[in-house]
Amino acid sequence: CPLNGTETVKAESLHTVLTNLNKVSNSRERASRLFQWIIHPHPAKTFFRDYWEKKPLLIKRQNQEYYQGLFSTAEFDKILRNDNVQFGVNLDVTSYTNGKRETHNPPGRALPYTVWDFYESGCSLRMLNPQAFSSTVWNVLSILQEMFGSMAGANVYLTPAGTQGFAPHYDDIEAFIVQLEGKKHWRVYNPRSEDETLPLVSSPNFSQNEIGKPILDVVLEAGDLLYFPRGFIHQGNCLPDAHSLHITISSYQRNSWGDLLLKVMPAALEMAMEEDVEFRKGLPLDYLSFMGVQNSDKQEDPRRDRFLSHMDGLMKKLVSYAPVDAAVDQKALGFLHDCLPPMLNAEEKASSVYGAPARWEDGEAVNVTVQMKGQTRIRLIRAGVARLCGDGGAVHLYYTTENSRVYHQQELKSMEIKEEHTDALEFLIHAYPKFITVSSLPCDTEENKISLAESLFEKGIIHTSESLKAK
Amino acid sequence: CPLNGTETVKAESLHTVLTNLNKVSNSRERASRLFQWIIHPHPAKTFFRDYWEKKPLLIKRQNQEYYQGLFSTAEFDKILRNDNVQFGVNLDVTSYTNGKRETHNPPGRALPYTVWDFYESGCSLRMLNPQAFSSTVWNVLSILQEMFGSMAGANVYLTPAGTQGFAPHYDDIEAFIVQLEGKKHWRVYNPRSEDETLPLVSSPNFSQNEIGKPILDVVLEAGDLLYFPRGFIHQGNCLPDAHSLHITISSYQRNSWGDLLLKVMPAALEMAMEEDVEFRKGLPLDYLSFMGVQNSDKQEDPRRDRFLSHMDGLMKKLVSYAPVDAAVDQKALGFLHDCLPPMLNAEEKASSVYGAPARWEDGEAVNVTVQMKGQTRIRLIRAGVARLCGDGGAVHLYYTTENSRVYHQQELKSMEIKEEHTDALEFLIHAYPKFITVSSLPCDTEENKISLAESLFEKGIIHTSESLKAK
Amino acid sequence: CPLNGTETVKAESLHTVLTNLNKVSNSRERASRLFQWIIHPHPAKTFFRDYWEKKPLLIKRQNQEYYQGLFSTAEFDKILRNDNVQFGVNLDVTSYTNGKRETHNPPGRALPYTVWDFYESGCSLRMLNPQAFSSTVWNVLSILQEMFGSMAGANVYLTPAGTQGFAPHYDDIEAFIVQLEGKKHWRVYNPRSEDETLPLVSSPNFSQNEIGKPILDVVLEAGDLLYFPRGFIHQGNCLPDAHSLHITISSYQRNSWGDLLLKVMPAALEMAMEEDVEFRKGLPLDYLSFMGVQNSDKQEDPRRDRFLSHMDGLMKKLVSYAPVDAAVDQKALGFLHDCLPPMLNAEEKASSVYGAPARWEDGEAVNVTVQMKGQTRIRLIRAGVARLCGDGGAVHLYYTTENSRVYHQQELKSMEIKEEHTDALEFLIHAYPKFITVSSLPCDTEENKISLAESLFEKGIIHTSESLKAK
Amino acid sequence: CPLNGTETVKAESLHTVLTNLNKVSNSRERASRLFQWIIHPHPAKTFFRDYWEKKPLLIKRQNQEYYQGLFSTAEFDKILRNDNVQFGVNLDVTSYTNGKRETHNPPGRALPYTVWDFYESGCSLRMLNPQAFSSTVWNVLSILQEMFGSMAGANVYLTPAGTQGFAPHYDDIEAFIVQLEGKKHWRVYNPRSEDETLPLVSSPNFSQNEIGKPILDVVLEAGDLLYFPRGFIHQGNCLPDAHSLHITISSYQRNSWGDLLLKVMPAALEMAMEEDVEFRKGLPLDYLSFMGVQNSDKQEDPRRDRFLSHMDGLMKKLVSYAPVDAAVDQKALGFLHDCLPPMLNAEEKASSVYGAPARWEDGEAVNVTVQMKGQTRIRLIRAGVARLCGDGGAVHLYYTTENSRVYHQQELKSMEIKEEHTDALEFLIHAYPKFITVSSLPCDTEENKISLAESLFEKGIIHTSESLKAK
Repeated sequence: CPLNGTETVKAESLHTVLTNLNKVSNSRERASRLFQWIIHPHPAKTFFRDYWEKKPLLIKRQNQEYYQGLFSTAEFDKILRNDNVQFGVNLDVTSYTNGKRETHNPPGRALPYTVWDFYESGCSLRMLNPQAFSSTVWNVLSILQEMFGSMAGANVYLTPAGTQGFAPHYDDIEAFIVQLEGKKHWRVYNPRSEDETLPLVSSPNFSQNEIGKPILDVVLEAGDLLYFPRGFIHQGNCLPDAHSLHITISSYQRNSWGDLLLKVMPAALEMAMEEDVEFRKGLPLDYLSFMGVQNSDKQEDPRRDRFLSHMDGLMKKLVSYAPVDAAVDQKALGFLHDCLPPMLNAEEKASSVYGAPARWEDGEAVNVTVQMKGQTRIRLIRAGVARLCGDGGAVHLYYTTENSRVYHQQELKSMEIKEEHTDALEFLIHAYPKFITVSSLPCDTEENKISLAESLFEKGIIHTSESLKAK
Repeated sequence: CPLNGTETVKAESLHTVLTNLNKVSNSRERASRLFQWIIHPHPAKTFFRDYWEKKPLLIKRQNQEYYQGLFSTAEFDKILRNDNVQFGVNLDVTSYTNGKRETHNPPGRALPYTVWDFYESGCSLRMLNPQAFSSTVWNVLSILQEMFGSMAGANVYLTPAGTQGFAPHYDDIEAFIVQLEGKKHWRVYNPRSEDETLPLVSSPNFSQNEIGKPILDVVLEAGDLLYFPRGFIHQGNCLPDAHSLHITISSYQRNSWGDLLLKVMPAALEMAMEEDVEFRKGLPLDYLSFMGVQNSDKQEDPRRDRFLSHMDGLMKKLVSYAPVDAAVDQKALGFLHDCLPPMLNAEEKASSVYGAPARWEDGEAVNVTVQMKGQTRIRLIRAGVARLCGDGGAVHLYYTTENSRVYHQQELKSMEIKEEHTDALEFLIHAYPKFITVSSLPCDTEENKISLAESLFEKGIIHTSESLKAK
Repeated sequence: CPLNGTETVKAESLHTVLTNLNKVSNSRERASRLFQWIIHPHPAKTFFRDYWEKKPLLIKRQNQEYYQGLFSTAEFDKILRNDNVQFGVNLDVTSYTNGKRETHNPPGRALPYTVWDFYESGCSLRMLNPQAFSSTVWNVLSILQEMFGSMAGANVYLTPAGTQGFAPHYDDIEAFIVQLEGKKHWRVYNPRSEDETLPLVSSPNFSQNEIGKPILDVVLEAGDLLYFPRGFIHQGNCLPDAHSLHITISSYQRNSWGDLLLKVMPAALEMAMEEDVEFRKGLPLDYLSFMGVQNSDKQEDPRRDRFLSHMDGLMKKLVSYAPVDAAVDQKALGFLHDCLPPMLNAEEKASSVYGAPARWEDGEAVNVTVQMKGQTRIRLIRAGVARLCGDGGAVHLYYTTENSRVYHQQELKSMEIKEEHTDALEFLIHAYPKFITVSSLPCDTEENKISLAESLFEKGIIHTSESLKAK
Repeated sequence: CPLNGTETVKAESLHTVLTNLNKVSNSRERASRLFQWIIHPHPAKTFFRDYWEKKPLLIKRQNQEYYQGLFSTAEFDKILRNDNVQFGVNLDVTSYTNGKRETHNPPGRALPYTVWDFYESGCSLRMLNPQAFSSTVWNVLSILQEMFGSMAGANVYLTPAGTQGFAPHYDDIEAFIVQLEGKKHWRVYNPRSEDETLPLVSSPNFSQNEIGKPILDVVLEAGDLLYFPRGFIHQGNCLPDAHSLHITISSYQRNSWGDLLLKVMPAALEMAMEEDVEFRKGLPLDYLSFMGVQNSDKQEDPRRDRFLSHMDGLMKKLVSYAPVDAAVDQKALGFLHDCLPPMLNAEEKASSVYGAPARWEDGEAVNVTVQMKGQTRIRLIRAGVARLCGDGGAVHLYYTTENSRVYHQQELKSMEIKEEHTDALEFLIHAYPKFITVSSLPCDTEENKISLAESLFEKGIIHTSESLKAK
């Protein structure tokens, strides 16, 4: 029984996968194919049904090359040499010896001369945002974020043979540990209680006697994958005979139903108080004399029952005022701000503003012509690149093309959308992955259609079906 | 059929009422008697059933002396002379001429020389917190606040004959207009819509053509009372033959069920997220593709229904996590901070720390002995003077005796209560209006009982059944 | 050889002195007479020549009643009872036992019941601003501040027999210790070095072995005075047989030539840079290579000499740009803000806005007429009540009548002065103590003269030569 | 008569000059040679004597290639394409038409597609910090800053034929206009008054009738140079037949004697008040009665003369307390923070931490050995790379190697220097440009010497005389 959309993804190399993905037109499909490759041969469908947020999954491949090209210690070294890596900001130097976890960051820039000295003396190195330095990591994460609908992050860990860099702890994210070089011994433990299941915040460091017995005790080798949900305690250490390099891909930090309710509930209450006089009516004159902690033992007082039951009624009524779509948009804005900008491939570049032929040549600006015509066929450059959100009066289109590879270095960008353009934008967004002609946009005038398309094109939000040509 | 507790309050003068109230031991009863006197001869019970938050009530008395002693223009003049009344802070000079509302406050202190000059030229005067300057107003409001369970405030308005001081508008409080001198012509209008019924905020100034026709058009004379709920538009002007002085007593600003829900809901959600893993589970991977404003037209998408119905379920579940008593306490703390300090009568003073006989005499400190013994009989000095609130770990007793007569000039004071004293405090609070002996407090040791009573006594929270005597 | 203006001040009681001062028309003369009475029989002239800022002066009087009426423990007790005295704000409870200095302030209001309990257990009490509670102290300080040209402050100290309240230390103010009740043993020590002579900040608490031997060892009795300059270390303790009450009158905190230079120098530099291109010329290209701490040993480098001598030249030139009068005004504004408001006597009140006959009577405002006429004779109500300061463009008159008795509780008040009124204000200010007619003010129109006088009158800055009469 | 050190610099191309400079070991000499090349054939010595801060200098070369390689519109285009250039941050779009100056920056990233469209429609483009994007500009400025001892900045201006981008105005910096492409018509005007000579702040835009007649009216062609001091008004416009590209190199913003005095004077006064009791003595009791603006006409009052003359004396005395070297260091710190980091050439890299052979190779860290030995010969990597400053207690070494190419993106970095290392650092700093052995550093132990050298090496502050070799 072949799995839905996964049977074509064999044990291809990362390079092949990424090359093939360039031929996949729909960015949502790209995302699910890439994810399927990562957890291959386990089918994504059953993964999300049986493991995701539930329990660890271990994939042993006996194929050291499987993840090759994603990241390597050689690239790590090159980054230290060429980029402005700062201790404490981009790189942590840590150790865990005799039950004691320490951080050794000096101030300032992390150069190979100093970094390798720490490594040689037994310290672990954690690079905090490899996507800012490695194009491949950027590419992979920017594709995956469209599947998760939640920020996809990554850390890289390099650990010398015979050492351990971190104390046992649990995290607040879903973790995919991708073993890149060498090997590492991992022990994973169940959450200690229901309260620590799918937790909202990471734990402090635990001592060995606080965590019970592992439910998984395994040696990861290059090419292997280990997934575990937030809340599962874990610790990894290197065997005496090999160093370890792995990258942890993470997602779903504060992406729970409760986190959405944090947006929904205040909006619901505001709306209910505006629209429903029941919420504006005064409290009983004497409520302070039978409610409150000092009165909580007065179970016999019938006024308490009446009061609580009236509250109940209002709270249930509140549900009907919940502006769920508006609250989802608030949550979405957070995600859009968290997003990596799309890493465009050659074709995408050539058909977008980033490859527009306008340029300086022989002492003059050439090809300075607007590219949008009525018959030009356009679509969003990625399914998730932009989102139309209304907050009361004005409608804005938020977009990720000007986000930075460094987390939140830029504010989330948006453009205000005139009311007469709203339908056209919804049409464009829902048309994806199909290209549509500028003329087909539901605006009143041709001029309006072209001006809207031009604005979107200038911000890199849309691309054309054909590469842009110089005259 | 005599009304509950009201038949005894006849057309007594304010002075007689206040004198008689001193003999009423229970401060809650004092409050309801005083309120009954204010709206006499209308019974409080039917007032709260038929008018409160519903519609205006007019009481014409043909008795100019009824409210005498509460406040007068002569007292106004005396206050200007003797107290530091500041324009813009304690006093506003206003006019409403030819449809234009203006404020004329100069900077600095308001002295009679300047104030009466404004008055003579046709300006109205509004004193913003007469309770800070007039002991009688302070006394009346500090009694009433115990009945309302919400801040009781007041403004005084003095208007020259033949003028109007304010444009038509509505307020965000329940208003009792007590005519003290002269007369005033009032017009009251229904709320303009359901949205402006029992509103949360006051209106801007209206022009005459925005407000429709009055439902009440009446001349108030000294001794008369006019009540109307928040949201009812009103305007008052002086007839050519008489000036007007009235005091507006107000309450129930932001004291609605919705205001309590503003405390309840965040706490409920926090608790639910802590205690119930359902709230911590991740959102569906693809929710952003079918939820949000840009997808709100996709009514046919079954995923929307499932999503909304799951949200519904969680919101309803939320109700069961609502820590209503704790939220009521948060609301109560706001009220306690708003409260006027109690204005003690001679007996209360003599039996509390304010009348303790410790003093300096003939070159030495005398009567410096702790007043609390096992057999001393004590109780709260007022029913509403203190409240026991727990916020997570520590329990605090908040109290109003060190509040100021000027709104929020002091922080709300509290003392931390040791766990072993909590029961004793609940016992003491619930015993009111009965006196109990220090010995009867449920603490483990006699020493603990006395030390607790001593702390409460020092802060003026309790008084003794007998006046304190010097040795 | 009779002393200048002092021979008339005999051993009068405080009451007599203050009564007589009311007959002294010039507030500057009032100030010097009151000061002379305080240090009687030592002549003020030689005091300021020989002791002020130089060395201690002890005056033993054998007259326990001399300072009677200034303050007493009975008044202290009355204040605790009637005023809102706050621990830590208005009152400190301290002890110094076995070389250890402690503060015992509980939170909240200081009531006699608690305060006398502390006193009985051996604690000292320091009231921090008795002028806010005692009219006599307010009166005395508000008179003295005109002589000092610097804030006159006070603390009151009550110490039980046989105890000491404070560790040895020095202060940053000139101190006049006025013994009011009982007696106290004082030891005074020289400043420990030139660096601690006339210091800018008070010292920490010293231990006994850090302070050397006293230069004065004396028992002050009621009626005695002890003066010492800032920087002189002191400690006082009670003998076993008597408590002590004294008030310390202080002045000259941060009132030095250097403090004035702190205002002058930045203004001088700003002006020089604006007006003189020499200050705007560039530094030498290579100055960083021979100047700076790392080059300070290069004494032989002639470039250093040239650089330093050019700097010298500029700094000396700076002197000629110093806007001393403007800087004095900046300093003066600080003093005006520090000032107590004048405490007016009956005559001053009757001839100023505070006694203007405008009032509410029999249902109407009466005597609402402007009091200023051309022939009205006016002057400042006190020499130091107001000051004309220009800061660049606008000229303002700053005045102290709306200051509070509590330090800096109010912002310093001012009114903007139109250019055409500046001369008139200088004329008025310099005329003091003489009264001048409103007509004699050098303004262009009679209307202008009256309008200026009216504004000053309304703020209480001027009074008239005759009491104001009702019509 | 050959000019001092300049005869060797002929009409070399920029490339040749920069290549030859790499062979100049002393960075200070590099700086003066590069500057000499820029103003060639005018000798630097007479330039600084006759023109610098005095008057404009025009150099016409008839050599279009002279500055080739410094920057070009082609590079501009490439930067737009490849770098994150932001409108309003890195690039301004401006126009000056019919006397109206406008800015046309849209929000967000500046891509060629949009930028060239603006250009075609007649707008000028100003790139604000080309040094962040162009290595050559970075290199040139980072060399020049060592000669100026003040930040060297740059802007690039591209103007279409027949247009003008800016209104007439003057700047607050010394300006070197280097014509790179095309030609531009410049008009330069004298400062309008002594007050606007060498001004501290730039002017607003002037209209043509406010600026008088030009003192220079010239067409700059590629290869030409125009210098003018701050305060000289200027405007440039393109002729109909050619666009213009120029770079303006600037320095000496707020680098005047007055700016140094702003550091010196507060420190001098603080020191004088600490050390000299004359500055701590009290002001005269009565100074407010004869000083201040309201008394400034009292020329006859001898107290004014005495007061002013005492002030004069103190201000002159102040000079002797001026801690000039410490103030120079405060100024130097500002400069160090403004500095570009050094752009190292291949040899400098190879002999510093940036070229240290430590690296990851074949699964392990190699060449991880400390490079400093006793016989290693070291020196500062640039004369101006670091500075030793003491502020009271601790001594710090401030250094520019971790500065960013973007203005103030990084805090200025420093390391605390132990007292026993201070002499060694002064020795090292003053030895430049000579290399010294680690052993020759005046520290007590060999270990100390090596540890100091190692710290400096790790931060890139020093390099070795020989390239570092892998084992």
